Amino acid sequence: MELKKGLEDIAIKETEITYIDGNLGRLYYRGYSIFDLAEFSNFEETAYLIWFGKLPNSRELKDLKEKLAEERNLPEYVVQFIKNVRKDANPMDVLRTAISMLGIEDESNKEELWEKAVKITSKIPTIISFFVRTRKNLDIIEPDSSLSHAENFLYMLKGEKPSNLESKVMDVSLLLHMDHEMNASTFACLVVASTLSDIYSSVVAGVSALKGPLHGGANSEALKQFMEIGNKDNVEEYIMKKLESGHRIMGFGHRIYKTYDPRAKILKEYAKMITKEKGLYNLYEVAEKVDEIGSRILGKKGIYPNVDFYAGLVFYSLGFEPDLFPTVFASSRIVGWTAHIMEYLKDNKLIRPKAIYKGEIGRKYIGIQERE
Amino acid sequence: MELKKGLEDIAIKETEITYIDGNLGRLYYRGYSIFDLAEFSNFEETAYLIWFGKLPNSRELKDLKEKLAEERNLPEYVVQFIKNVRKDANPMDVLRTAISMLGIEDESNKEELWEKAVKITSKIPTIISFFVRTRKNLDIIEPDSSLSHAENFLYMLKGEKPSNLESKVMDVSLLLHMDHEMNASTFACLVVASTLSDIYSSVVAGVSALKGPLHGGANSEALKQFMEIGNKDNVEEYIMKKLESGHRIMGFGHRIYKTYDPRAKILKEYAKMITKEKGLYNLYEVAEKVDEIGSRILGKKGIYPNVDFYAGLVFYSLGFEPDLFPTVFASSRIVGWTAHIMEYLKDNKLIRPKAIYKGEIGRKYIGIQERE
Repeated sequence: MELKKGLEDIAIKETEITYIDGNLGRLYYRGYSIFDLAEFSNFEETAYLIWFGKLPNSRELKDLKEKLAEERNLPEYVVQFIKNVRKDANPMDVLRTAISMLGIEDESNKEELWEKAVKITSKIPTIISFFVRTRKNLDIIEPDSSLSHAENFLYMLKGEKPSNLESKVMDVSLLLHMDHEMNASTFACLVVASTLSDIYSSVVAGVSALKGPLHGGANSEALKQFMEIGNKDNVEEYIMKKLESGHRIMGFGHRIYKTYDPRAKILKEYAKMITKEKGLYNLYEVAEKVDEIGSRILGKKGIYPNVDFYAGLVFYSLGFEPDLFPTVFASSRIVGWTAHIMEYLKDNKLIRPKAIYKGEIGRKYIGIQERE
Repeated sequence: MELKKGLEDIAIKETEITYIDGNLGRLYYRGYSIFDLAEFSNFEETAYLIWFGKLPNSRELKDLKEKLAEERNLPEYVVQFIKNVRKDANPMDVLRTAISMLGIEDESNKEELWEKAVKITSKIPTIISFFVRTRKNLDIIEPDSSLSHAENFLYMLKGEKPSNLESKVMDVSLLLHMDHEMNASTFACLVVASTLSDIYSSVVAGVSALKGPLHGGANSEALKQFMEIGNKDNVEEYIMKKLESGHRIMGFGHRIYKTYDPRAKILKEYAKMITKEKGLYNLYEVAEKVDEIGSRILGKKGIYPNVDFYAGLVFYSLGFEPDLFPTVFASSRIVGWTAHIMEYLKDNKLIRPKAIYKGEIGRKYIGIQERE
């Protein structure tokens, strides 16, 4: 039996959802280039595409938009939980628990899987925003069904309608994080789903995995790094020191991409615009310089900026504190999680690997008085 | 890249915790035969063994027993959640949510992993019992620290001290379910832990997976089958019909055991005794007959009773309703989950498989008006 600790070269399923070309730096959702989708599409349309495999026509898009807008409210007992939870709680713990609670209510519900996927997707921004407002001792802002998914998220967070640029940047950021083929959180969803457990349990496992610093934590690390550097004139020295002492540059490198991550390429442009609008352009300048110098040095080894490199800067500019970044990530990745769950269940097989035993066998049981 | 859908022949890790000899029907925890442990050991001692790799001496066992007994209480907000949750909630949803809540509180806690493992292990019976009492409109019974883990569980459930036989049967049942090498729920724990997420998040994923009927649901199915048959004189006809129509006998067969599951062998004896004490011996007689006839027919193909075959009957005799069986399973498997998490983290590697893309690439984005 082969030992495959990280499962790095093992395919767990066939998929028609996402394709990554790591050598050319291309990402496709359902065969459509991420460059086209980021330019022409939006959260709702791309969610439809990922869930159902085709771009929606006008009626289909209208239906999904309405359903997503209608489902934003939370049951009162979840609102009470959020209002009463300790203010210093880890936001991912709050999200994990709130989704687990929603699953209790929904247990006997006979809706189809995609309808439950829409409901969870719709409610995550409300959970996050309600918690953020509460921990700042501000009134919660009820969702506004006239706003798009991205706009409403920012509106509930800050209590005012976002600017056109904020809306677009939020929308694109969510779109870029929606799916990325297999990864630890999506895989956690599948392991749970493969036992024929329910979709809420599966998603809870996804949130649990995304909480881990090795998965959902890199974007805040990248931002922290830019803040530490402080000024673009410090970049060269900072990087050289880091690399010479054997440290990584945060936001660089990816298991699959051996060239520039297409999502980073897209986010870079938006990071430039939104940091200007928000008075954070000095941080962008630092990031750009780290990108330039880092790519020049590490690019030879196939190490370039990944999506996390600019994502933290963008989320921060949009008004999210760093400890919220993984929850924003989750609010987008929920689309990919649920799409993969539905795809896997069409031809389910229980996921149950083995372990190789390396210990003793046949130890003799001795009475407690004789033990050391 | 190889497609390995269920990961059946893949080893995810090396382990020194549990060894299963599927051909001989042997199970070892840390090298000790399950037959010896079931006869001479108990829940607390075997939990120590699984967590720490050796049988405890008197002082070590006393310390663990005290810690397990001390930690049984729940924070008030978890008690309130359990008291207010809908009475028809799925008990696994309640357990998943309650553990997720405990994780919020514990986030900033710097205890060692094994201490957190003890805490979660200690609190699960309280969560289950409080929910059971509440949904029956009975007062909750506070834990009694003078009782063993198994005794206290039954005491909180029923409000009276268990008989000697009940205590022993409960203790052995928990001991037999504690670990079983790799399986879907333990693996779900590891996928989450491998991102360096916290132990509560990892355990929540384990509970989520165990909820699935393909994993934690077989023992109640087996019991239902005995109830359906009703009388031992109906067994032969029932089985023949089932098999001729291509159905499975519930509680038979296992991916690894090709002979009689040693846990079923042990549980059978206790099932006989406890059903007699509880006036359910007719159900035992049915089970015994199903075992006998089923093994005779299916044994040639290596299909024999597994642990679930008698576990449902035992749990039921001890006073657990069938929808609680997966939670009882969880109250024991928590020891294996946390032991595997600790073992994996000693030499962690992010678990991230891949998928094989089978869809189109390079579809052209078209405007919504042009779509069908």
